[in-house]
Amino acid sequence: MPAAPSQNLLRSAVEQELSAIFHERKSVAAAYGSNFVRLWTVAGENVLGGKLVRPFLLVETYDALDAVETIKPADQGNASGASQQVPDLNETGCERETAIRIAAAIELLHYSFLLHDDVIDGDLMRRGRPNLIGSILVDAGVPSPSTDLRSDDAGASDASLHWARTGGILMGDLLLASTHQAFARAALPHAARLRLLDLLEHTITESVAGEQLDVGLGDGMISPDLTTILTMSAYKTATYSFELPLRAAAILAGASPHMETTLSRAGRHLGLAFQLQDDLLSTFGDPLEHGKDPFSDLREGKQTALIAYARMTNAWPSIEPVFGQVELSRNDGMHLRELLTDCGAQQFVQGLVDEQLRAFYELLGTATAEIPPRVRRVLLELAVRLEGRNS
Amino acid sequence: MPAAPSQNLLRSAVEQELSAIFHERKSVAAAYGSNFVRLWTVAGENVLGGKLVRPFLLVETYDALDAVETIKPADQGNASGASQQVPDLNETGCERETAIRIAAAIELLHYSFLLHDDVIDGDLMRRGRPNLIGSILVDAGVPSPSTDLRSDDAGASDASLHWARTGGILMGDLLLASTHQAFARAALPHAARLRLLDLLEHTITESVAGEQLDVGLGDGMISPDLTTILTMSAYKTATYSFELPLRAAAILAGASPHMETTLSRAGRHLGLAFQLQDDLLSTFGDPLEHGKDPFSDLREGKQTALIAYARMTNAWPSIEPVFGQVELSRNDGMHLRELLTDCGAQQFVQGLVDEQLRAFYELLGTATAEIPPRVRRVLLELAVRLEGRNS
Repeated sequence: MPAAPSQNLLRSAVEQELSAIFHERKSVAAAYGSNFVRLWTVAGENVLGGKLVRPFLLVETYDALDAVETIKPADQGNASGASQQVPDLNETGCERETAIRIAAAIELLHYSFLLHDDVIDGDLMRRGRPNLIGSILVDAGVPSPSTDLRSDDAGASDASLHWARTGGILMGDLLLASTHQAFARAALPHAARLRLLDLLEHTITESVAGEQLDVGLGDGMISPDLTTILTMSAYKTATYSFELPLRAAAILAGASPHMETTLSRAGRHLGLAFQLQDDLLSTFGDPLEHGKDPFSDLREGKQTALIAYARMTNAWPSIEPVFGQVELSRNDGMHLRELLTDCGAQQFVQGLVDEQLRAFYELLGTATAEIPPRVRRVLLELAVRLEGRNS
Repeated sequence: MPAAPSQNLLRSAVEQELSAIFHERKSVAAAYGSNFVRLWTVAGENVLGGKLVRPFLLVETYDALDAVETIKPADQGNASGASQQVPDLNETGCERETAIRIAAAIELLHYSFLLHDDVIDGDLMRRGRPNLIGSILVDAGVPSPSTDLRSDDAGASDASLHWARTGGILMGDLLLASTHQAFARAALPHAARLRLLDLLEHTITESVAGEQLDVGLGDGMISPDLTTILTMSAYKTATYSFELPLRAAAILAGASPHMETTLSRAGRHLGLAFQLQDDLLSTFGDPLEHGKDPFSDLREGKQTALIAYARMTNAWPSIEPVFGQVELSRNDGMHLRELLTDCGAQQFVQGLVDEQLRAFYELLGTATAEIPPRVRRVLLELAVRLEGRNS
């Protein structure tokens, strides 16, 4: 389905903002030499090559909340009287430009998290292509990694790997700083800016806590019970990918704290559904669709809700010896997959996804009066995209 | 020499602010479990156990620039008419409390840099004690590292080392975020806050560029010529440890951009002198005084100005085979030290230190009219401490 014209406009506005940021940062970086510029160049390419779902969610929600103010000549044909139903909530005096800036900033935050995640996991690839670390390795003369290689078997020298991973740490730091700069400079009354800063602080705290849980589970430092895994999934994904854009939109549009809370709850349900679905797709999805190694979660011994459930069934003695084996064969992988289906783990996790989606629709149903129709539409589209997801 | 009463007051004000930050963050962290609280606890202990030289420099300079406003009853005995000579520069309406907050924030930035530096260098110790990564390793049951161990020979399991280093990355991220939060919330007119944010952005860009150069030199990705090494030393140390506190003080006190530039230049000279002196002390200083392994720079093959100079002399063929050997013996170390003295490297670097100090005094001489006496005193005390340094 081709994107609607307004979606194309939105994409180009967000892309323009991101391009401007990287353009400016690259020109500052030039004073510090080519290696420093290179980091900014690769990061810019990767960010602009992303799907930008978080900034779109923010601006779409902002537009929906701020409907009265945003009816521009080009939109009037589609407005169908919505402007009469939606009160003008925007008392912050926020211009749409500011919303686009904050939207771009949360994409920088996302990429900053990915970079440090890749350093922590030793990953050199993302979505079938070299990530920033992989690109710096290629610069250093290491042959392009063509499969989902990890640091320890990339065939790179210790020095070039160290150099490349340092680039990942440092670029992550720079983009974390850039995110804060954008929030701190938002053209808003100081009180609204402080609400945004509170939100950013909360988001980073919770996301980092989620990352620590995830790594602790993987390293065997934290007991992999189901509750911990569900908590980790919510912290690591729902908080910054769903709640952050929705809540930021509410703040920017001058919506009430109550509206912010409602959107936050909606984001939590959708975010958790998304993460659980991700675990299902990684293991049971079509590799041609999602482009990932279909057994990577099983090979890495990733502690997911699937595994937490399986551990409580009598299939576990058959799963345990093979789970987490780096050398997992295709046959072993297929067999593990069958075991996870037969013991009910797949169905259980699908049930958790459905539960979150049901809670989301219930929230929308009981909050009918408070959620303006255009906002409902944005949320419903998000849920529909999520339900139809196969990658 | 015991600290003067006002220095004790200053120390306790900065410590109180830092304690309050960590106290607040630990109470927020409690919702995310004991491992997350532990990171904040260890970080808080390490920060409060530091020398806090950067925050003191900031507040002392701020007080000196803001002399008229800061004469409190307890100070009046010592004021000796200085208040008449110093114009009241503070047009920002900045309270001293705000200066103390920003001072505490730059200590968090410093510690954040140290954490990522330790991750990058694989260090588990700092000043003879376990650093944050080392402390998390000890928590995980790894025997306390008692010498200056690196990650690769700590005897820790891969999983516990990975867990501990992840803690270093994540805590560095959290404190980088906290630094920005403090700057973004500074109780100042927005224009002054923007000046502070510009300064923070510049500082982080330059410090990260310096770190990248340092790592690139160590990994053999960047040619170790003297100019590059001096540039790296200025970026990595002078920018955030000297220029940042001095320039922030100028902005907070409402000083002119010209004053900020003068202080910045003074900080650059002192900072570069400090870093070069550090290289000299690491190699030629008394280990009983500085507490470091006297040959660690030589063993790690650290590219310093000493080595860059030696490389250009005919002593290099004798130095090269031993330099950077992990197994460097005490005798080899002593011999290298002699070679570095005999080839003139030690004298050359001491000459560079003297050159920077001379340029600093010259600046103070030519800028007599513009630098208020109390500010001169702060800068001179800093230079004198630097010249008398043996650790």
